[in-house]
Amino acid sequence: MKKKRILSGVQPSGLLHIGNYFGMIKRMIEFQKSSDLFCFIANYHSLTSLNDKNKLEDNTFVSFCDLLALGLNPSKSTIWIQSHVPEVTELAWILSNFTSVGLMQRSTSYKDKIGRGLKPNMGLFSYPILMASDILLFQSDVVPVGKDQKQHLEMTRDIALKFNNTFEEIFTIPEIDIDKNASVINGIDDQKMSKSYNNTIPIFGDDKYIKEQIMNIVTDSAGLNEPKILILHYLKFIHYS
Amino acid sequence: MKKKRILSGVQPSGLLHIGNYFGMIKRMIEFQKSSDLFCFIANYHSLTSLNDKNKLEDNTFVSFCDLLALGLNPSKSTIWIQSHVPEVTELAWILSNFTSVGLMQRSTSYKDKIGRGLKPNMGLFSYPILMASDILLFQSDVVPVGKDQKQHLEMTRDIALKFNNTFEEIFTIPEIDIDKNASVINGIDDQKMSKSYNNTIPIFGDDKYIKEQIMNIVTDSAGLNEPKILILHYLKFIHYS
Repeated sequence: MKKKRILSGVQPSGLLHIGNYFGMIKRMIEFQKSSDLFCFIANYHSLTSLNDKNKLEDNTFVSFCDLLALGLNPSKSTIWIQSHVPEVTELAWILSNFTSVGLMQRSTSYKDKIGRGLKPNMGLFSYPILMASDILLFQSDVVPVGKDQKQHLEMTRDIALKFNNTFEEIFTIPEIDIDKNASVINGIDDQKMSKSYNNTIPIFGDDKYIKEQIMNIVTDSAGLNEPKILILHYLKFIHYS
Repeated sequence: MKKKRILSGVQPSGLLHIGNYFGMIKRMIEFQKSSDLFCFIANYHSLTSLNDKNKLEDNTFVSFCDLLALGLNPSKSTIWIQSHVPEVTELAWILSNFTSVGLMQRSTSYKDKIGRGLKPNMGLFSYPILMASDILLFQSDVVPVGKDQKQHLEMTRDIALKFNNTFEEIFTIPEIDIDKNASVINGIDDQKMSKSYNNTIPIFGDDKYIKEQIMNIVTDSAGLNEPKILILHYLKFIHYS
């Protein structure tokens, strides 16, 4: 039986953090045992939050290396940098003609980001179209995502169905695979850990930086030598995973 | 002195019509005498109104041939098909991160098209970004447009300035050149002649079709052998131009 093609992307907006690891990378590396894994560094998506060319180049390279270090194997899986494939923006333009403005306006992730103070630019607004292009271009069978990305995947399916209905069965309609056991890892401010919120603990950061980040966590008023509640939360999570 | 680079595009949404000719092509062919003319067939833009692959391919090819027939000279000018240059959608994605959603919402052309019954899709909504990419990618000095395109050009300038201010002077800020003598040519229904409104008279259409289109014009109640007012308007315009 043909292996299912599973697609996953990692944004290089900053160093990979433990939220990425437990949210996605760990599962991804499992997937490559049984599936035709397609994995890319989504550096075009990072433009929505990062516009420093040198930083973006560095992060893209380092994220790629980190994935290899974490176990992603290029002889088993297909791995690439998003911006190395021009067809992804070409298809995004074509798909935008099959995507209603209303669909984008209903994106809760967009509203949430604007609510948190990000500027409402067209990159952020049309993000789900580029994501649809990433997925549909490679005829992905399954896309594993966190709960917060479920709506984006539903949009991909809507756009693909509309395209297929207009022409013929061009695109594989991807299944959404949400890992019910995955927890959203919170950052040092107890919001979801995300590079956009600057609250991450990197996987391969240097000791000093990681210690600093952890010491920045606001905890309860327990005595100096007693364990702090938020730190405990991490330790427990890491222990059980 | 270095010749100014003048950029112009023609949408192959249908056969080129006399509105295209008097609105733009005639000037364009004049420009190639004195300027570094860059001219392209904007087939990605046509996707906003046409989604029939074979028709779009045919129109793209025929529009290209028509431009050559009308005097565009590839040994004097640079001529290309928009979709043959993948960098145009790549840059469009990058620029979308420097374009506010509010700027797009202020597009009178978008509002006008929706008002006329076109579906509010993301292709139509982000049209000015692709246009900005067309212009900025080639470092155009001047873009000649009709009055109805002036706002789009202002948006291109806004986006380019924002980009240059964020980084360095990467893009040439294009001048807008509006031909004050150009009239907007009306179609057979007395709206602006446009493929979107299906009211055009083609330049190279066959005799029977052109005759049919002209006979469809609703005129005044003058007698059968007297000249009709709307037809007279065309004849006068063609004569004087």
